[in-house]
Amino acid sequence: MPKKTPPPAVPLELREACVIAAREVIAEKGVENLSLRDVARKLGVSHQAPYKHYPSRDHLLAEVMRRCFQRFAQHLDARGQFDDPKEDLAALGRQYLSYAREHPLEYRLMLEIPWPESAEHPDLIRDAVHTFDILRKVLRRLHGDSAASQDRVDLDALYIWSTVHGLAGVMNGDCIDKLKLKPKVLTQAIEHLIKMVELGLAAKQ
Amino acid sequence: MPKKTPPPAVPLELREACVIAAREVIAEKGVENLSLRDVARKLGVSHQAPYKHYPSRDHLLAEVMRRCFQRFAQHLDARGQFDDPKEDLAALGRQYLSYAREHPLEYRLMLEIPWPESAEHPDLIRDAVHTFDILRKVLRRLHGDSAASQDRVDLDALYIWSTVHGLAGVMNGDCIDKLKLKPKVLTQAIEHLIKMVELGLAAKQ
Repeated sequence: MPKKTPPPAVPLELREACVIAAREVIAEKGVENLSLRDVARKLGVSHQAPYKHYPSRDHLLAEVMRRCFQRFAQHLDARGQFDDPKEDLAALGRQYLSYAREHPLEYRLMLEIPWPESAEHPDLIRDAVHTFDILRKVLRRLHGDSAASQDRVDLDALYIWSTVHGLAGVMNGDCIDKLKLKPKVLTQAIEHLIKMVELGLAAKQ
Repeated sequence: MPKKTPPPAVPLELREACVIAAREVIAEKGVENLSLRDVARKLGVSHQAPYKHYPSRDHLLAEVMRRCFQRFAQHLDARGQFDDPKEDLAALGRQYLSYAREHPLEYRLMLEIPWPESAEHPDLIRDAVHTFDILRKVLRRLHGDSAASQDRVDLDALYIWSTVHGLAGVMNGDCIDKLKLKPKVLTQAIEHLIKMVELGLAAKQ
C-alpha cells in the first residue's frame, strides 16, 4: 500500500505565524494600526493569505487577545498550592502584578483596548471569564460556595481586581515618577496593598 | 495724552485656541497623532502660528494635560466639607470615580499615556503633584501630620489611588461586560470598594 502523503503543514503554520506577526505589528505600530495587510507583508505572503484563517483583522486581534488571557491564566495558576485561602489570595495578587509588570503589552491588550465585536468571538470571552474565575474560586474558599455568598464573592472579586489592576496601571504609568515618592514606599507598595486587602476581608462587616 | 492702543488680543486667544483644538485633535485621531500642523489646520491659521506659543507638539500636549489635572483637582475639591476624615475620604473616592466616568479622555491623558519629557514641563508636574496632595491631605487628617506618619500616609495614598484608578479602568474597559456580573453587583461596586478601604484603614495593623 502506498504511503499516504500527509496534508501540507503550511496552513497550520500560517495560522500560528499570523498570531506571532500580529503581536509584532501591534508592538511596532500600536493596536489601532494592526491590519491583515501588514501581517501578510511581515510574513512575506500574499495579501490574501491571512484571510484563509482570519476573516477580518478583528478575528486575528481576538485570537491574539485570547492567547494573552490563556498565558495570563497559566501564569496565575503557577502560583503554587496554599492550604490557607488568604495566603492563596496574596500569592494570586503577587502573580497578577508580576505578569502586568513583565508583559505590559499583553496586559494592555487584555484590559486597556477596545475589544473586537464580542458576539463573533466566543472563545475570547470564554478565556477571559476563565481568568476571572481563578479569582472567584479563591474567594469561594474564603466565603463559601453557597448561592447566598455569590454576590459577596463577586463584589470582593471586583474590589480585589480593581486594586491590583490599579496598582499595575499606577506602577506602569509615567505619573508615579513625578510624585517623588521615597524608594522605600515604592518598594513596599505591593505588600502594603496585599495587607490592606487582607485586613478589609478579615474585618467584621 | 493720546490713548494707548492695547496690545492685540490675538496672541492670547491663539494660545488658548490651540489647547482647545489640540483636545479635539486628540479626541478624533488619538494622542499619538497629535501634531501642531493639525492644530493649525483646525484653527485655520498658518502652520507656523502655533509655534509662537508652543515650541513643540509635546509642549502643547503638556499644557493640555496640565489643564486636565487642574480641572480634576477642582472637581475633587468640590466634594464639600466633612468633619469626619473617613467621610471626607469616601467623598473623595466617589468624586474621583465620577470624574473618571464623565471625562474618560481627560482621565486617560493624565494617567494612561506616555508623558512628554518631564524636565521641560515643570508646571505639569506641579499640578500633578498638587492633585495627589489632595489625597495625602485627607490621609494626614487620619494618620496625623508627624514626620513618622509620612510613610504610612504615602503607602495608604498609593493603595487608595490604585484602588479607585483600578475600578475606573475596570468600569471604563470592555472586559467587564463579558463577565456577565449581576447588575446589582455592578451597582454596588463603588460603595463596596469604599467600605473595604474603610475597613482596611480602621483595622489594627
